[in-house]
Formats: sequence, structure tokens, C-alpha cells
Amino acid sequence: MKTTIIGLGLIGGSIAIDLKKSGLTTEITGIDLNSAHASKALSLGLIDRIETDAAIATSDLIILAIPVNALGQLIPSILDGIKKSAVIIDTGSTKSSICKAVAGHKHRSQFVAAHPIAGTENSGPEAAFSGLFRDKTNIICEREKSSEQSLATAQKVFDALGLNTIFMEPEEHDKHVAYVSHLSHASSFLLGQTVLDIEKDEKNIFALAGSGFSSTVRLAKSSPDMWAPIFEQNAEYLSQALLEYIMHLQKFQYHLMKRDVNELHRIMKGANHIREVLNGIELKSKQAVNGKSK
Amino acid sequence: MKTTIIGLGLIGGSIAIDLKKSGLTTEITGIDLNSAHASKALSLGLIDRIETDAAIATSDLIILAIPVNALGQLIPSILDGIKKSAVIIDTGSTKSSICKAVAGHKHRSQFVAAHPIAGTENSGPEAAFSGLFRDKTNIICEREKSSEQSLATAQKVFDALGLNTIFMEPEEHDKHVAYVSHLSHASSFLLGQTVLDIEKDEKNIFALAGSGFSSTVRLAKSSPDMWAPIFEQNAEYLSQALLEYIMHLQKFQYHLMKRDVNELHRIMKGANHIREVLNGIELKSKQAVNGKSK
Repeated sequence: MKTTIIGLGLIGGSIAIDLKKSGLTTEITGIDLNSAHASKALSLGLIDRIETDAAIATSDLIILAIPVNALGQLIPSILDGIKKSAVIIDTGSTKSSICKAVAGHKHRSQFVAAHPIAGTENSGPEAAFSGLFRDKTNIICEREKSSEQSLATAQKVFDALGLNTIFMEPEEHDKHVAYVSHLSHASSFLLGQTVLDIEKDEKNIFALAGSGFSSTVRLAKSSPDMWAPIFEQNAEYLSQALLEYIMHLQKFQYHLMKRDVNELHRIMKGANHIREVLNGIELKSKQAVNGKSK
Repeated sequence: MKTTIIGLGLIGGSIAIDLKKSGLTTEITGIDLNSAHASKALSLGLIDRIETDAAIATSDLIILAIPVNALGQLIPSILDGIKKSAVIIDTGSTKSSICKAVAGHKHRSQFVAAHPIAGTENSGPEAAFSGLFRDKTNIICEREKSSEQSLATAQKVFDALGLNTIFMEPEEHDKHVAYVSHLSHASSFLLGQTVLDIEKDEKNIFALAGSGFSSTVRLAKSSPDMWAPIFEQNAEYLSQALLEYIMHLQKFQYHLMKRDVNELHRIMKGANHIREVLNGIELKSKQAVNGKSK
């Protein structure tokens, strides 16, 4: 399959590496508005050649890994000019806005609205690596609006990346990721801001930063260019999640000021349940690996 | 040195392993209120024998790694009955309350108030491992109230663990760790609680939990038995840190609802500075390692 990847950062670059490895694509053309990123992706061997938008019209597979505000603008115009047998897949972290942008397009069935849930705090082609998506969850939205052929091609791509695909409606997707992904990022950005803020008055505070702080604040290193549009598109659900989080923090602070240690203990004990939940996910992912290796 | 370690969990157990490796201690006696923990520590080879409190009177070095509320109660009575040449070191995550508990004790100079800043989300003797403290920061409070001999012995212990020691007053310590350690833990516990809470209504939400969520919520697995007393003892400073964090979250939510993407971007860009700060810490720690190997 002649493949074009638009956006050659962490996501687009990592897809390129594993698609090439899988043998599913013979040649990968890369497009990036940032010419330094495009050159870097080429020199790193992530893609076979850089081209302008002209490559899109002759591609069998077009994968988009660009900020979510650009997706809504770009996908309809790409759908206008692609081959009849071609498939477009996006990788955006919000789905309602993107699905609305393509609703009613005469070639809507050639588009698969996807969200492979994986990433790191790093960005750009240098951040790309093989295996980023292995055993991670992928969500396809509005499955019924994609043709069977488009879905079959997309499934081959997701298999090559090692993703486990589930299906959801766009609103359901956006609500769920607001809690398990977008809230984590917002909480981390603001924890970073809070501590940087206090550091202005209290020098050398970071000498005390143990490994706990590093992991909680890791996502605060993420790219604002990518996250500001995600937060904007998912503002309603993220706002709701933030208000619930703030409410829990306020309650905790109230019990803390009352020195109600039993209540603090009870809350923390409840939160400990996250260990079993995350172990369960890990277990499932291991079973998936074992299942495949049989 | 005949050594007794009181509290055989992650901290006490990891100290035991590296002290034994260093050859600084010939024999390590372990004490733990939880007899299952004590037996486990013995069977894992962390300690040489289990004993009752009687061992304390004949020890040269007594290290305490128990919850902070127990420290304030135990240290004065241990100081009452130890050898004149013996040294007690604590490892508690709060220091004001503990320093107040021993203030004016006639053997105060035999005590070194310390906080080696290291840990994981796991607890108990099985969680102990060699290298937990390597290149981490250790804080000694009220240095001038410990005798030179006590400090020299303590320094040998900290060197054996690979810790870099700095000095602070107890209030300064408690304020700083409120931001870089205790706030991280509280924010993580409450993020876990928020997402567990929403999961009651929204099933399967955790299938979507990418690696970002796991790292942000990692500390929510920590032991409430250890953390409830820390939060109680550091309630004033942690409360202040929580209020500042909540204020930043509220401002962010306000800009989000106004769809003020530029302001969201500006805040996240500012928080990105945490990357340089944490890289700086890593660099220092690497330089320390290189310096030692010369």
C-alpha cells in the first residue's frame, strides 16, 4: 500500500516505524508543516520520502497525526481529492468535533475515526519509537459510517501496531478520555505550575523532588501545541472532570484542617483500589500478548 | 557496629540491605510490631535476627523507619535507655513534630533527625531493594543539636546508602516537602478517587487508561497507614499547598470554559519548564555519581 503520513511527530513517527516493519506498506511518504521535522523524520529513516500534498491523491492509505484543531479542517478537503479505494485514518484524542466536521461528506465512508491511546511526554520525530502502541487500546468511533473495506484496511494497520480496538460513540469517547487521559494531563500541568510558582519564593525546593514528584508531574512536560486544541475541543467534559477533582481536593483539605485522620485514611484506602484496577489492565494486556504468541 | 532497625518495610528493609552490603554493620537486628513483616524480613535475609525491644539497649546504631506519629512517641523513650555512645537516626517525612518531641531531652545529642527522600508506591519488606537511596537527597534537621560523634556515625550510614545530605531547619523542611512530595501524593490519591468515582457510572472506563494516567496516579497506591500521619503532622503546610493547587486548577477551568486557548497554552508552556528543572536534578545526580567514581 502506498502510504502517506501527515504529521511526523511522536505519534506519526512511531506509526511509520511499525508500519514499515510489518511490511504492510511498501513506501511511506511523509508530510509535515514543520520542514525541520520532515527532514529529521527522513534522516532518521522513519519515512522514505518527503512530499507536498500532491502525494495524497495517489495514496492508498493516509494517516493523520496532527493537532486535533487541524484535523477537523484538513480531513474534509483530503476526502475531496483521494482515490476511490483509499482510506483515511486519524489519530486525534477528541472525536466529537472531528466526526461532526466530516458528517455528511460524500466520501465519509472512506474515513475511519480512530484514537490509539498511547503517548509519552515527548514530542517530535526524535521521540518516535517502535512498540509505542503495542497492547494499547484503540477506539474507533462511528464505526457504521466507515465502509467495510475502510475498516478492514484500518484493522490491518492497527494489528501491525499491536493495538486492541474497541468501538464507541464520539460523545462517550470524549467523556471517558476526559477522565482517564485529559484530566491526568491537566492535573499534572497545574501541579507543575503550583510547584514552579512556590519555587520563586523558596529557592532550591527542587533538590527535594523525589521520584514521586517526577512521575506525578511527568505529563506537565507535554506539548501545549498538541494539548491546548484537545482541551478546547473537550472543554465541556474536561471542565466537569476538573470540577469533580477540585471538589475531592477541597473535601480532603477540609478534613485535613480538621485533623480528621480517620477520614483522610478512609479516602486514601479507597483510592488504593486503583492498584487492582491498573493490575487488571496489565494482566489483560499480558494475556493479549500470550494469546497472540500461541 | 551492632545495629537495630525498627520498622522493616520498604524504607527500613532497603536500609538494611545496603548497610549489610557496605560492611558498616556486622549484625542487624530487626524489630517490627507486625510479626509477619518481621518474619518476612528475616526470611528474605534483610536482617540477621528478630528481637524484642531489649536489643535496643545494647545497640550502637538504631534506625527508625516507622510511621511519623509513632516516631514522636518512641524516640524519647529509646533515648532514655541507650548506650552513651549509641546513635539514633530517624527517617520520617515530617520533622517539626519529631524535633519538638525530643527537644530538651538530656540525650538529644545522640539523635540525628533525618529524612532520606526516596520511596516507591509499594510497602512492606518485599518492597525493599538495594539502591533505593542512591543519589537521592537526605535532609538533616537541627544539625547543631546532634553531637559531632552522632553526625559522623550518621554520615557513614548515609554514605553507605549513597545519599547526598543537606541541612535545613524543621519548619523549612516541612514547608518544602509539602510542595514537592506531600502535594504530589495528595493530588495523586484524589485523582485516583475522582476517576474511581466516575467509573461507578461509566463502566469500562479504565480500558482507556493510557500510560499517562498510570504514572500520574501511581502514588495513589501508597500506604494510608504511612501517609495519614504524615499529612496530619504537616497539615498546615500541605493545606496551604493544596489551596494553591486548587486555585490554579480553578483558574484553568475558568479559562477552559471561556475557550481562552491562548491562556491555556501560556499556562502549559510555563509548566513545561518543569522539564529543565527535573533534567537539572538528573544531571546533578549523574555528576555526583561520576564524582564518586573518580
